[in-house]
Amino acid sequence: MRWYPQRTMPNMDVINIQEKFGLFSDHWSPKRIGELNGQQILLAKIQGEFVFHKHDDEDELFMVMKGQLILELRDRTVVVNPGEFYTVPRGVEHKPTAKEETHLLLFEPLDTKHTGDVMADITVETYEEI
Amino acid sequence: MRWYPQRTMPNMDVINIQEKFGLFSDHWSPKRIGELNGQQILLAKIQGEFVFHKHDDEDELFMVMKGQLILELRDRTVVVNPGEFYTVPRGVEHKPTAKEETHLLLFEPLDTKHTGDVMADITVETYEEI
Repeated sequence: MRWYPQRTMPNMDVINIQEKFGLFSDHWSPKRIGELNGQQILLAKIQGEFVFHKHDDEDELFMVMKGQLILELRDRTVVVNPGEFYTVPRGVEHKPTAKEETHLLLFEPLDTKHTGDVMADITVETYEEI
Repeated sequence: MRWYPQRTMPNMDVINIQEKFGLFSDHWSPKRIGELNGQQILLAKIQGEFVFHKHDDEDELFMVMKGQLILELRDRTVVVNPGEFYTVPRGVEHKPTAKEETHLLLFEPLDTKHTGDVMADITVETYEEI
């Protein structure tokens, strides 16, 4: 039996995703809305271009709630529409981009770094819990 | 740095959640549609009453896509509507119930047992990948 870390977030309520999206408006700054088994659930609003980066040890799931996510990989481009998700495997360079404002739900390990192996002006060190 | 298991599912495509729901109709039989970091994403259609059970070592997230999930706990009842999720912490007994057909997205560790500490007629041993 594997061991999964205990939750540290105190929130034991039902979480309404749209309500949480209503609590922030900044782009490229994920907010933590849930935690389980050492993983975190983040919401993010994005528009424009992010930076190419990778996470050497973590797979990262992008679920689109609104808008359209264009995930540039080095060898191809993946388009993710509302109601769809895509998992970027560990070690794979990716650059999230969105033409219109796009709302994402992310699922990844708690210790995943925002811009992975890259440090940029856009990098957020600690995610706010909402 | 923690170590997260490699993915074993070969599917590297964009996953459309509604399309996946269209592929099955049986109740109380989760289907695996994704895997990352030793965790799995399941879809389930439920109606009626499940059995009380718990998972000693795994937290379990229930996201409602359609219908309404009534999660009976021993000390209270949690109601989860579309666009909402609730995380049942490890060790907490819960009994999922739905009056109308309800569509769920589940997030939990790969080795989580369907009915936890309980074996019932309804228990599914291995989840089909779709």
